Amino acid sequence: MSDYHTATRARIRLFVDAPLSGGQQVMLTRDQAHYLFGVMRQGVGAPVLLFNGRDGEWRAKVAEAGKRAGRLDVVEQTAAQALPPDFWLVFAPIKKARTDFIVEKACELGMRRIQPVFTAYTNSERLRRDRLQAHVVEAAEQCGGTFVPDVAEPVKFERLLADWPEGRQIVFCDESRDARPMAEAVAGLTGPAAVLIGPEGGFSAQEAARLRARDDVIPVTLGPRILRADTAAAAALAILQSVAGDWR
Amino acid sequence: MSDYHTATRARIRLFVDAPLSGGQQVMLTRDQAHYLFGVMRQGVGAPVLLFNGRDGEWRAKVAEAGKRAGRLDVVEQTAAQALPPDFWLVFAPIKKARTDFIVEKACELGMRRIQPVFTAYTNSERLRRDRLQAHVVEAAEQCGGTFVPDVAEPVKFERLLADWPEGRQIVFCDESRDARPMAEAVAGLTGPAAVLIGPEGGFSAQEAARLRARDDVIPVTLGPRILRADTAAAAALAILQSVAGDWR
Repeated sequence: MSDYHTATRARIRLFVDAPLSGGQQVMLTRDQAHYLFGVMRQGVGAPVLLFNGRDGEWRAKVAEAGKRAGRLDVVEQTAAQALPPDFWLVFAPIKKARTDFIVEKACELGMRRIQPVFTAYTNSERLRRDRLQAHVVEAAEQCGGTFVPDVAEPVKFERLLADWPEGRQIVFCDESRDARPMAEAVAGLTGPAAVLIGPEGGFSAQEAARLRARDDVIPVTLGPRILRADTAAAAALAILQSVAGDWR
Repeated sequence: MSDYHTATRARIRLFVDAPLSGGQQVMLTRDQAHYLFGVMRQGVGAPVLLFNGRDGEWRAKVAEAGKRAGRLDVVEQTAAQALPPDFWLVFAPIKKARTDFIVEKACELGMRRIQPVFTAYTNSERLRRDRLQAHVVEAAEQCGGTFVPDVAEPVKFERLLADWPEGRQIVFCDESRDARPMAEAVAGLTGPAAVLIGPEGGFSAQEAARLRARDDVIPVTLGPRILRADTAAAAALAILQSVAGDWR
């Protein structure tokens, strides 16, 4: 069995900041060295897959292994850089565990960008963006992708709409009865889009009216039951990828 | 504002075992009394929505409120009993928090039955079925549905296939490259179906081969990235409801 297959089977994949190319040396952070040598019990010569979000995936070999540091030698490219479709998730932060869940799912389900938004009914007022970004990196390591979506700076709802980029459709998960089923409503969609998920309690009547008045908004429903915000996010992203994204 | 609207807005919905009809009295369990009177600070006269999985949803009023007990008077029906489509989720148990997540999502996403299965690569060997069922009840209270899916007794993979009911299609989330995208593969589906999700690490080669050899199995893929089992479950159920279920 080749090194590459061993690495694939072991599924040790690490995100690194460094540029990746053949012959390159990569220094591990303290956390990565602890994980690789302490938790996963790897030693000199062990294969590891690396990606940095820009240069695809590369096979590397452990060259030095210490308790708090380590060095890898980059050997060869194992996958080209792949970009997911130009989709964003815009969501209102909810409780910690469910917010973590949402950003993890957004990465696995192939979003380009994750944008937190504070709406009228959003309870959470602070967001540890660095913690969410670390969560996204972990999801990217696990899901085998070569791209890592950014968790953007949270913005208020008004600001979000005022600065909204022209040409990007907003798929608005609307709880009112007259919106169309999502799979049908996004079937003809081409070009950039964003899924917008409200907090528990939904959008205020004013927010919903402002959204419905816009030309670039597609109101959609997600079935007859009331979904929690994290369920709605996972469901909507899966449908978007299935109907208009890279799951076809 | 009528009582009914207040109850809807407050969204206090309780699952009860008792039959429901106008004029009926319903005794609360100790936990329900604590929740309703302690946590939610409701008192005599407060409106509560009740359902039992069989008789639809009913508006009731608190008639007696105590620390450890309480009594409700059932007033009038607010929704008819509604059955979701005849879909099951069959899944291999994973870590506790993610298993909880899967059963919660299966309820919100309208499954009729939730069937745990032990496969070759399933790490978890025991399952607190009563705890999972309680979790499902909580999800049903929250999602506004009138139906509560059963968490069935876990079975081994061999037994599952040997006893599989005739005429129920198995939507097999297959990690091999040649399966069709799920939305396309289930587009023509009518009649009973089940989504089958493996554990982290997937199915063994032998299990996958046995599945692919069956006439009632539809192998499907869920895009180019590797999904965690809980993500795959939520994604697959949303696509099934969108394409062949009650989200159309």
